[in-house]
Amino acid sequence: MSKTDPLIIFTPSGKRGHFPVGTPILDAARELGVYVESVCGGRGICGRCQVAPEFGHFAKHKIESKADAVSDWTAKEARYTDKRGDLPEGRRLSCSATIQGPLVVDIPADTVVNQQTIRKAVDTRDIHRNPAIQMCYVEVEEPDMHKPLGDLDRLKLQLEEEWGFADLLVDQQVMPQVQKILRKGDWAVTAAIHQDLETSRPTLVALYPGLKNEAYGIACDIGSTTIAMHLSSLLSGRTLASAGTSNPQIRFGEDVMSRVSYVMMNPDGQEAMTKAVRKAVNDLIGQVCADADIDREDILDSVFVGNPIMHHLFLGIDPTELGGAPFALAVSGAVHTWATEIGLEMNAGTRVYIIPCIAGHVGADAAAATLSEAPHKGEGLSLMVDVGTNAEIVLGSKAHTLACSSPTGPAFEGAEISCGQRAAPGAIERVRIDPVTLEPRIRVIGAEMWSDEEGFEEAVAGTGITGICGSGIIEVIAEMYLAGIIDEDGVISSSGTARNPRIFEDKRTFSYKLWETASGPDITITQTDVRAIQMAKAALYAGVKLLMEKLDTTTVDRISLAGAFGTFIDPKHALVLGLIPDCEVENVSAVGNAAGTGARMALLNRDHRREIEETVRNIEKIETALEPKFQEHFVNAMAFPNKVEKFPKLEQSVTLPPKRAAKDDNGDGNPSGAPRRRGGRRRAA
Amino acid sequence: MSKTDPLIIFTPSGKRGHFPVGTPILDAARELGVYVESVCGGRGICGRCQVAPEFGHFAKHKIESKADAVSDWTAKEARYTDKRGDLPEGRRLSCSATIQGPLVVDIPADTVVNQQTIRKAVDTRDIHRNPAIQMCYVEVEEPDMHKPLGDLDRLKLQLEEEWGFADLLVDQQVMPQVQKILRKGDWAVTAAIHQDLETSRPTLVALYPGLKNEAYGIACDIGSTTIAMHLSSLLSGRTLASAGTSNPQIRFGEDVMSRVSYVMMNPDGQEAMTKAVRKAVNDLIGQVCADADIDREDILDSVFVGNPIMHHLFLGIDPTELGGAPFALAVSGAVHTWATEIGLEMNAGTRVYIIPCIAGHVGADAAAATLSEAPHKGEGLSLMVDVGTNAEIVLGSKAHTLACSSPTGPAFEGAEISCGQRAAPGAIERVRIDPVTLEPRIRVIGAEMWSDEEGFEEAVAGTGITGICGSGIIEVIAEMYLAGIIDEDGVISSSGTARNPRIFEDKRTFSYKLWETASGPDITITQTDVRAIQMAKAALYAGVKLLMEKLDTTTVDRISLAGAFGTFIDPKHALVLGLIPDCEVENVSAVGNAAGTGARMALLNRDHRREIEETVRNIEKIETALEPKFQEHFVNAMAFPNKVEKFPKLEQSVTLPPKRAAKDDNGDGNPSGAPRRRGGRRRAA
Repeated sequence: MSKTDPLIIFTPSGKRGHFPVGTPILDAARELGVYVESVCGGRGICGRCQVAPEFGHFAKHKIESKADAVSDWTAKEARYTDKRGDLPEGRRLSCSATIQGPLVVDIPADTVVNQQTIRKAVDTRDIHRNPAIQMCYVEVEEPDMHKPLGDLDRLKLQLEEEWGFADLLVDQQVMPQVQKILRKGDWAVTAAIHQDLETSRPTLVALYPGLKNEAYGIACDIGSTTIAMHLSSLLSGRTLASAGTSNPQIRFGEDVMSRVSYVMMNPDGQEAMTKAVRKAVNDLIGQVCADADIDREDILDSVFVGNPIMHHLFLGIDPTELGGAPFALAVSGAVHTWATEIGLEMNAGTRVYIIPCIAGHVGADAAAATLSEAPHKGEGLSLMVDVGTNAEIVLGSKAHTLACSSPTGPAFEGAEISCGQRAAPGAIERVRIDPVTLEPRIRVIGAEMWSDEEGFEEAVAGTGITGICGSGIIEVIAEMYLAGIIDEDGVISSSGTARNPRIFEDKRTFSYKLWETASGPDITITQTDVRAIQMAKAALYAGVKLLMEKLDTTTVDRISLAGAFGTFIDPKHALVLGLIPDCEVENVSAVGNAAGTGARMALLNRDHRREIEETVRNIEKIETALEPKFQEHFVNAMAFPNKVEKFPKLEQSVTLPPKRAAKDDNGDGNPSGAPRRRGGRRRAA
Repeated sequence: MSKTDPLIIFTPSGKRGHFPVGTPILDAARELGVYVESVCGGRGICGRCQVAPEFGHFAKHKIESKADAVSDWTAKEARYTDKRGDLPEGRRLSCSATIQGPLVVDIPADTVVNQQTIRKAVDTRDIHRNPAIQMCYVEVEEPDMHKPLGDLDRLKLQLEEEWGFADLLVDQQVMPQVQKILRKGDWAVTAAIHQDLETSRPTLVALYPGLKNEAYGIACDIGSTTIAMHLSSLLSGRTLASAGTSNPQIRFGEDVMSRVSYVMMNPDGQEAMTKAVRKAVNDLIGQVCADADIDREDILDSVFVGNPIMHHLFLGIDPTELGGAPFALAVSGAVHTWATEIGLEMNAGTRVYIIPCIAGHVGADAAAATLSEAPHKGEGLSLMVDVGTNAEIVLGSKAHTLACSSPTGPAFEGAEISCGQRAAPGAIERVRIDPVTLEPRIRVIGAEMWSDEEGFEEAVAGTGITGICGSGIIEVIAEMYLAGIIDEDGVISSSGTARNPRIFEDKRTFSYKLWETASGPDITITQTDVRAIQMAKAALYAGVKLLMEKLDTTTVDRISLAGAFGTFIDPKHALVLGLIPDCEVENVSAVGNAAGTGARMALLNRDHRREIEETVRNIEKIETALEPKFQEHFVNAMAFPNKVEKFPKLEQSVTLPPKRAAKDDNGDGNPSGAPRRRGGRRRAA
């Protein structure tokens, strides 16, 4: 590299350097540490090294990238496209195209080849790749009596010479296959090399005859309720299939603490649950492979996340210690293991990486959601809330990040609500209440329209209207509050009965009849339901508030709602309820399974693994059970949106009901209507 | 370290440095890279760090090591001996004893503690230790809600702080046990850390509550005929038990090539033989553990060697490629794997190290024998011959080392000899023939005396006299030659019949009746037997001669005879037969199972692993099948001791029969009496 040579700049990384005219773009990328895939080692046959030269004046980079700054279409590229079909528009093979002048080159996140079937997956975020698996094509010298080096040893030499893998380890299961594969491939083979940490030795984990131009990985989030899995191409980065299934451990206990109790009371309980979750994961692998029409043997890497108890049970670790103080994790750091070691059915060389847990109640799922939402990377203050049975809360910025968990209970998932149910067809997911008539409009999962639109009856005829799911509960209670059906303390007021007969006396309290169903019972919101949501949201808010106090802040700049809320929770309603602190509505987003996205990031790019390991080490962990102010924050947060906190940003777009005058608070001496106990974390006995 | 501080010199390494008065000897050793065991990390409770201060004037080191150069007996040492009993005479605990002046300290190879039962093992060579397994006692912080690091993570921190193991990997099977073991040990545990190569990351492979002051390893030589195993303490270096068993693969084929044929002709042949040898190894492990009264779970490391076909079958690799040119090894380099990966029953964390193979016919057993006999390390020229069905031959010095194999066939093991048998009770192992009367004297395995000594009849009554083993055959033919019964061309002369009726006409040739047995057939040496030995020794000599020519030498300084010859072959007889080139008789030694000793060296000291890996890389491999002069050497070597080579050193101590005049050679035109074909390597079809 000399300063007089043309400058090349790679985006999005911004890495740059000077290279002599005629240097292949791939070589320049490698020298600068820019990750560009290449399976064939620059022979122009795998098509994986494609890049997109960018032309024009780039003020930011102070560079003019002209059309002739890259070589003309090469013979190698012509041969490739003749055989394999066109490259995507604007793409070049970086092993063949050479630098001719100052140049900007974009590294696309997606390098699909072979016209592979493109499926629309739920999770479409582009992730730049630097996977732990590298596919390396080599041509090996044939054996020679004068040089009696073993076949494997000659393969290793070639991998060292062409790919720089010195000191390669070899998985035992590869050894018996080496000779047959080399001969089948006529001495040309593709080696799958695994290297995660820089300090670990690269390892030959699988071997294929000829050019093997594909390798897959799975990213899996093991939730207490649902297990979600993505199947990705490690070479193109593309998500090829996504699937989910119920966690079969539910039959041992609905929530994590009842599962810990099950282990404590049954000698084989842990083994049974470990077996159950691993079987479910194996079944899901089968499902995503069938969906994408690939062989599970071609899965070579995997990443798993889960809350601490799911994490331990998956690894075969007794979770009993997590059932009581001091909630000691057996292992909090990242786990590197083998699929075969934990009974997973993929390739015999497949590795498993498990993202670290943050604390005894803040698991690898929260860490993965942190990786995805990156509260630890922003300039401003970001809040990430991942809601399952516990809420896992991460608040911070580049400067400092905190995490805690808060015992919301399962109300947000529709449990402990009289008409609650899981998000499934037939569940009410959205609600609007007319503030004048108090009449509701609803939307139901599985139907495309609101209940006041034409065709609604027909649309729900198949599923019926069976209950209300988490996001529906949030909305209905927020709407009831906005319509004045419930007051700021969460009391369904008797005065409502005069406004609309949907409000009716129900034993000693009042209820709101949201929907009359044709066959089943009515969908009714009771005072107890409101209390359950108040408790859950107060616990969540109190946890957030604790972290805000630790950071000495009263506002946050950005909020991500992940987990059970799915992508369907309406940020405005969450703010109206006071579930989360005041924020610009447009800066609140529901991000769905952020843990799954984080797992996929760790799968596709080992830099993300190092990033989250470092982040978890640096996150300050707050144990809410040890914080005396939690109770006070909890009591204040029982009110809608909050007894003491202001929501001025929310009030710019929503008119909140007027606050009751302070004197009223002295009426019954229990202003919040909340039970005077801490919404304590439920523990196994 | 300052030059004004006292000098300390460690023997036998000679490593030296200056340390302040008061420095514990252990700390000085560590700083200088001298391997001293310590399980307890200097707490004075394991007793493993014992060293022997040496006093007096050491001219070689230019140092006066005075009695007061080491501190007085310390309180820690007194506490240790009170609890555990005395240290061996002259030993100190190096964690406690400190440097007080210029000092010489010997590191003993044997650091037995706890009055452990001392058994006499066959293999008694002291080997300085630097094993791949280190036992590390630590006391771990208890969990704390404010610092939610996992139990395993706190253990890892402690291992890093006290023992310097950064970036520790953890075997999956350890994880589920960590919490229980920490609590059982009341937060004090001993971690077994495996680290073989410096470039590999250290790995936690097993964990024990409290102080675990022992760990074992096995070294195993898988021969085609016999599997031999040593069980050693990794902490004291001592061999605790040794055992051998027949290789059960014999039922698939007597020699290696017939086993390759079996694989080629039977679809499940390789699996069946792999299973058989692994089962035999597991049974042997059971046997050595029972002998030493230890639990096989306490075996944490293992080293295996074998010829290339045994090596491949043990690893589950199809050996077919070794059955024909170019005799391609699947893997020649050292193999690192896990016991569980290849079906061995030890601790789940036990590692397996397999010494590299030198070439397609020169296996890991020859490499191990090389490690043991060290032809590659001497100033003078050393020859190492390891005899099985093939002879593996290594010749060299510090400057340059060569290896080849030569197809001796199984005659040296007693096969293809009319009355031959394996070395077992009842077999004739030594023979003397009176050169005047031609009457023999014999010794038989299992009896303590010669046949002309009192009590011989009684001593052999139990076993009978059943045949003649390899070393017996060497001796009887050498004695027959010395007594003039056979001539230099190996012909049993008709003239002998007049000297002693033991020589009798037997079809068209003559035989020598060595022994009349009470019940069974007589033990007779036939002309065919003589020819078989001639062929075998000629092949062996021709291989040696080839290597000598490559090194442009006509003499060697030292010869080690290893393998089937056991420790019982008489060097003089081997020279008389011309099995090996001329050499001072006292510089020829029979070293028994040198491969097993080499395996044990690699088990106890990973420096020996690096040494043999390096040596194997540097050894020049000669393929005898490709050498045109092999045939000529072979024909010359058919004669006793050799048609053209001289044995002046041998003739200083032995009077050889006079050479026949050259004119006789022209008598029948076939002077050597040898068949005019090359003693070709037998190959599978």
